[in-house]
Amino acid sequence: MNIQALIAQIHQKKSFLCIGLDVDLDKIPTHLLAEEDSIFEFNKQIIDATHHLAVAYKPNTAFYEAYGLKGWAALGKTIDYLNVNYPEIFTIADAKRGDIGNTSTMYAKAFFEDLNFDSVTVAPYMGSDSVEPFLAFEDKTTILLALTSNKGGLDFQGLKINGNELYKEVIKTALTWKNSENLMFVVGATKPTYFEEIRKIVPNHFLLVPGIGAQGGNLQEVCKYGLNKDCGLLVNSARSIIYASNGLDFAKSAQLEALKLQQEMELILSK
Amino acid sequence: MNIQALIAQIHQKKSFLCIGLDVDLDKIPTHLLAEEDSIFEFNKQIIDATHHLAVAYKPNTAFYEAYGLKGWAALGKTIDYLNVNYPEIFTIADAKRGDIGNTSTMYAKAFFEDLNFDSVTVAPYMGSDSVEPFLAFEDKTTILLALTSNKGGLDFQGLKINGNELYKEVIKTALTWKNSENLMFVVGATKPTYFEEIRKIVPNHFLLVPGIGAQGGNLQEVCKYGLNKDCGLLVNSARSIIYASNGLDFAKSAQLEALKLQQEMELILSK
Repeated sequence: MNIQALIAQIHQKKSFLCIGLDVDLDKIPTHLLAEEDSIFEFNKQIIDATHHLAVAYKPNTAFYEAYGLKGWAALGKTIDYLNVNYPEIFTIADAKRGDIGNTSTMYAKAFFEDLNFDSVTVAPYMGSDSVEPFLAFEDKTTILLALTSNKGGLDFQGLKINGNELYKEVIKTALTWKNSENLMFVVGATKPTYFEEIRKIVPNHFLLVPGIGAQGGNLQEVCKYGLNKDCGLLVNSARSIIYASNGLDFAKSAQLEALKLQQEMELILSK
Repeated sequence: MNIQALIAQIHQKKSFLCIGLDVDLDKIPTHLLAEEDSIFEFNKQIIDATHHLAVAYKPNTAFYEAYGLKGWAALGKTIDYLNVNYPEIFTIADAKRGDIGNTSTMYAKAFFEDLNFDSVTVAPYMGSDSVEPFLAFEDKTTILLALTSNKGGLDFQGLKINGNELYKEVIKTALTWKNSENLMFVVGATKPTYFEEIRKIVPNHFLLVPGIGAQGGNLQEVCKYGLNKDCGLLVNSARSIIYASNGLDFAKSAQLEALKLQQEMELILSK
């Protein structure tokens, strides 16, 4: 799926919500643990209950790898289920990969060909030839970590290079790479005023924004500084939606939480 | 396995060779493609032929993920084979992971508990709480990317922060994290003189050195600046050993290439 189709979906659904599928077997409803594939069954019910409110889903690969082969199989079933049943949805493998050129090509094949995600998150530390193999897939989107929302995010991302923070250098440099029009950037929601400065560097690119909800970011503030003419934001929420309830009503509760965010987004988009 | 056991193994085998198990089905001997699990069969024969010459094996996860479930299963069989048959070997999951705290914990569980590797490589971009969940496994080793050997390695790692390159800031900062005595650092072999400066910051830590062989690094030069009293180096070679031949003699050819490096290492250690 290309960015134009994503923008069309955002306008149609009046939503720029991305739901993080970070499945922890210690947190899902216990009645699902009897299922043969509890992880997939949880995802399937969450997706079925929320697909009309969200434009993207983002499984984080860590939560699948932690369960070994069973987890990797559940990841495959989840992306297949999305691709077959909801082809309009933008899919993100939150994998934060990155390695030397020929190795990054193998990662790109894993997520873009074998699993057939629309996009994958990539870490910038190893530079141009660690990211360009992902960008070489021109019908896919490469989502580069820029400014992350975690406690240690500024340990290195906030260091000053000739007066500019590292995360700004990362964004500026990435714009010089081949096929950089296929980039999105991860920008955490914890400090909304950063979006103002980032929009000066990338007025047109989409930003993937984690940190709304459980991590404490504020949607209104992020939108005030981050929205652009195409919307330009995908706002991710995981725990506050998927773990809204751990009872039999978990999917319905997730839907209600997603609806709250979608309605807030509809109001913002209408302005 | 702890570092003391690794040091003992280095002295016993007179080797600090790590063999990279980066299995590409387009490069392995064609007669293996008829096997039910070609990837594992290739690894098994390489390991059986070289285990007395190497102290560590390092599968890069990209090469397994690219083959989906089959690849992930082959990774699991490979680490199990090493742990059961050659428990003295130090095992490295070259995964370059890193995410926010609770997510990094899931990655740590994947590689340290589910797969039971002795160590995993981790990317520093997201800072302290992306690495400390790995360090919390005190009987395991966390190998942090510092200076990588690829073309784009210096794009960001070489940027100056108050006169010091970013990779030095990464190493210095990591030393302040909890359980930092369980760190190793990835330092590429392409510019051996960098080792002199890095040894001023971390005189005692082990360094994992890719880039010998196919990537063009020079063993003598690396050792001149990088060795310490405990050896302190794990030198990785992948392609030049495992793809020394793609005929029926591939394992024997790999052994001969590994022997050449081991003999060079024995000479260096004897000085």
